[in-house]
Amino acid sequence: MTGSVTVVGLGPGDPRLLTQAASEALAQAQDLIGYIPYVARVPDRPGLTKHATDNRVEIDRAGHALRLAASGRRVAVVSGGDPGVFAMAAAIFEAVETGDPEWRHLSITVEPGITAMLAAAARLGAPLGGDFCAMSLSDNLKPWEVITARLEAVLRADFVISLYNPISSARPWQLGVALGLAADHRAPETPVIFARAVSRPDEAIRILTLAQARETKADMATMVIIGASATRLIPRGEATPFVYTPRSVPA
Amino acid sequence: MTGSVTVVGLGPGDPRLLTQAASEALAQAQDLIGYIPYVARVPDRPGLTKHATDNRVEIDRAGHALRLAASGRRVAVVSGGDPGVFAMAAAIFEAVETGDPEWRHLSITVEPGITAMLAAAARLGAPLGGDFCAMSLSDNLKPWEVITARLEAVLRADFVISLYNPISSARPWQLGVALGLAADHRAPETPVIFARAVSRPDEAIRILTLAQARETKADMATMVIIGASATRLIPRGEATPFVYTPRSVPA
Repeated sequence: MTGSVTVVGLGPGDPRLLTQAASEALAQAQDLIGYIPYVARVPDRPGLTKHATDNRVEIDRAGHALRLAASGRRVAVVSGGDPGVFAMAAAIFEAVETGDPEWRHLSITVEPGITAMLAAAARLGAPLGGDFCAMSLSDNLKPWEVITARLEAVLRADFVISLYNPISSARPWQLGVALGLAADHRAPETPVIFARAVSRPDEAIRILTLAQARETKADMATMVIIGASATRLIPRGEATPFVYTPRSVPA
Repeated sequence: MTGSVTVVGLGPGDPRLLTQAASEALAQAQDLIGYIPYVARVPDRPGLTKHATDNRVEIDRAGHALRLAASGRRVAVVSGGDPGVFAMAAAIFEAVETGDPEWRHLSITVEPGITAMLAAAARLGAPLGGDFCAMSLSDNLKPWEVITARLEAVLRADFVISLYNPISSARPWQLGVALGLAADHRAPETPVIFARAVSRPDEAIRILTLAQARETKADMATMVIIGASATRLIPRGEATPFVYTPRSVPA
């Protein structure tokens, strides 16, 4: 087979946050597959066919990409952020594992991107400066009991916690429960970041305390970073404070 | 003050993995500060003064950058990978917090980059496809007991685990102990990735079982990813298998 699939990380939104390798992969694609707003970020050009689909059908989208590649096309599957972090790459490999055995012999590559937690962290300072974890708060794909057990584990062990998919219209209460669990383990003044649409025109980043975060609404485009016990602010007068987690943990 | 510090993520090594924003920040710098091999990655040009220093002195390097900026210079501090992940950003903000109060009013920005775990994951498939954590295995800055407690927590809770700084000449045994702990919680056939110098000419990526990893030497340029219980290989005949972690956790 001569076709290929490249899963391309578009980063958080600003085209200046794409890697050169990702830009080149987009320039070489014949077919572009992805969630509607990600496909819309890539300019139209002659020779590029766009296939924009709704968010809920990652596995169908993956199968579509693999079938096109098997027919000889150069396909780019686009993801926001990094494709390997709660995005399209895992769906592609799930489809490869369970699909047509010939798909295993396609050229399938992943072009990494700036995932949301790195983009949000960079805007504020270095909140991920110590050990940290990344969790999806969606219980569409795993039981809620697994999510709470994982949250308890990393809260106890004092990791900085990045929460992807914290909320949606179908999952309105999970973030509140997660922040409630956090409050069982961390002080009310622990910094919590709500980062929405980082690097896009509608960017809105809020630095809250854990107590405030429990009273604050987030939406689907938001990611949440819960600080560790040592995460702190550096006040700067009128300017937004820096937020960072020291590298050291005292004995 | 008119000077500035930008902490720039150079990514894993291949210049094609820099973001455009990072490239622009390097092009605008008057002074370049960083660990010798990172500074060496940036081409010389008129008007750019390079200050390359040894690895062990992050805080001195941060102070140097801030003093230069306070004197009016446009300074870029370069980090491999992403500056916010076990790299220079936290050191800069530690220096800001404890140093000259005037430094808080400098323009200090961070340009994110592709951190090693994302680059390594992209090379192999989607090993970070589920919940994951990133830990530094260095006990230079935190007690070994904290490290083992954190490892036990994330092993029990079935996170994929990325280990930064797994080994050095001064810390030869820590990785072996960490993999021994992993073997208490995960099956011997669990995939473990040793990824060295990803995207550089001397790149060497090995996909091992946990049992094999315990018998294998790593070096300072290696990062280690320990799979979760569901992390698996997709065999591809003679070609390197894909490695991925499914998005779903069964009930």
